[in-house]
Amino acid sequence: MAEQDLRIGIVTVSDRASRGEYDDRGGPAIAAWFERALSTPWQGVSRLIADEQALIEQTLIELVDAGCQLIVTTGGTGPAARDVTPEATEAVCNKLMPGFGELMRAESLKVVPTAILSRQTAGIRGGSLIINLPGKPSAIADCLNAVFPAVPYCIDLLDGPFIETHLEVVVAFRPKHALLKREGKL
Amino acid sequence: MAEQDLRIGIVTVSDRASRGEYDDRGGPAIAAWFERALSTPWQGVSRLIADEQALIEQTLIELVDAGCQLIVTTGGTGPAARDVTPEATEAVCNKLMPGFGELMRAESLKVVPTAILSRQTAGIRGGSLIINLPGKPSAIADCLNAVFPAVPYCIDLLDGPFIETHLEVVVAFRPKHALLKREGKL
Amino acid sequence: MAEQDLRIGIVTVSDRASRGEYDDRGGPAIAAWFERALSTPWQGVSRLIADEQALIEQTLIELVDAGCQLIVTTGGTGPAARDVTPEATEAVCNKLMPGFGELMRAESLKVVPTAILSRQTAGIRGGSLIINLPGKPSAIADCLNAVFPAVPYCIDLLDGPFIETHLEVVVAFRPKHALLKREGKL
Repeated sequence: MAEQDLRIGIVTVSDRASRGEYDDRGGPAIAAWFERALSTPWQGVSRLIADEQALIEQTLIELVDAGCQLIVTTGGTGPAARDVTPEATEAVCNKLMPGFGELMRAESLKVVPTAILSRQTAGIRGGSLIINLPGKPSAIADCLNAVFPAVPYCIDLLDGPFIETHLEVVVAFRPKHALLKREGKL
Repeated sequence: MAEQDLRIGIVTVSDRASRGEYDDRGGPAIAAWFERALSTPWQGVSRLIADEQALIEQTLIELVDAGCQLIVTTGGTGPAARDVTPEATEAVCNKLMPGFGELMRAESLKVVPTAILSRQTAGIRGGSLIINLPGKPSAIADCLNAVFPAVPYCIDLLDGPFIETHLEVVVAFRPKHALLKREGKL
Repeated sequence: MAEQDLRIGIVTVSDRASRGEYDDRGGPAIAAWFERALSTPWQGVSRLIADEQALIEQTLIELVDAGCQLIVTTGGTGPAARDVTPEATEAVCNKLMPGFGELMRAESLKVVPTAILSRQTAGIRGGSLIINLPGKPSAIADCLNAVFPAVPYCIDLLDGPFIETHLEVVVAFRPKHALLKREGKL
């Protein structure tokens, strides 16, 4: 059975970067992390958009429809008036995954007390997992290091491609029965 | 004043177990935990149903109406398409209790990084507390050990029966004023 | 540029205190904490109301409209039938801040296992931050100690007044770029 190709949507949400007032640093930081972490071949689909809820929703829907099994966003998760990425994510998801936001905030709290201002969430639309990451490049890696060990098994449960990682960067965890099933022993 | 009898609803949510493809192990694991933990006499009311949101909602409502002051579910809290137990729970509750899911995920994270994939929640419908537990029997005990110390006082606040435990299994915590009130000293 | 004056709404939600059956201890405990913690001059606006959702919502809206950039509530966050402060808070906020409730419960869990019964939340209405605190005076200080380090920067992001604290009580955290911007160096 041929495996599906892994496609990852990377969405930078930033008024100023989308107007060209400064370079997008979040999107490239995410792509670089996946480049280091994944041994499975993958294709990135990048978007750079303004902090407009309708536009974020439309972009997430398009990336799901384009076959991205995993979509990560960067930016727009704070308390300011223009920060609406979590609202857009919740609006397009049919299932919410509160554990992602809880863990990312708990990890970030070890670094800065303002971590509680992050409203990051995650959820599932159809067969795709959508995760909000922070806007700050250094915090992106902290959050991916924390939550990514659970992502490959989540994608398995959504009938997506089998994701493998470079173990020196991040170790994907799967329960034993999932591994036996893949090897045809269950 | 006669105490109310304690009734506990135990709902196994599983397509395959409900079709008889394998035995329900979650429901009996929950019953065995309560058998060990509770010194107060209690009556269990068990249900085994498929992962259908409308059916889960109807079952929870029936158990509340049947006088179960505590209802626990097992199964259906993951990210897969058929996992809808949290959605059913939220739909029938008038109050959500986010602290239960947060603590169960934090405890499970000490064991497996995929704990963040659990979408377990808890809430209150009328005078009944509903708690989602995981599907895996070993994880059920971990979660009950973590959250049950707060359950008897919660049931007190809902005007339910006074629940006492075997202290070597789990210790129910009540604030001092609640104990003085019960002893008629407040 | 003249700074805005800092106004803090303090809302005690309690059926019995609002009927005069006992003194409000939560509201004064909050005012005393701010008195100790803040070096920025501030004006408190206090309210004492019953556990009625519509009344709590109306009070929160009035305090936002009266220019309170920060509003804290005490009481009504438990599981009992009359506890509806979180529902009222969510109803009037356009943004929810889940990290506040998560951190307050995690901190309270270090003291009592019944911390998971607290349904405290926080959110933003327009340019005002609303935070639910517990009803118990001793727990109020624990929660403010935990979350307040993030509050001044949150108020900055909402274009509110620059809040400074007595460092021996609580240290406000701001990222370096926020401090440089204030000093006109960015």
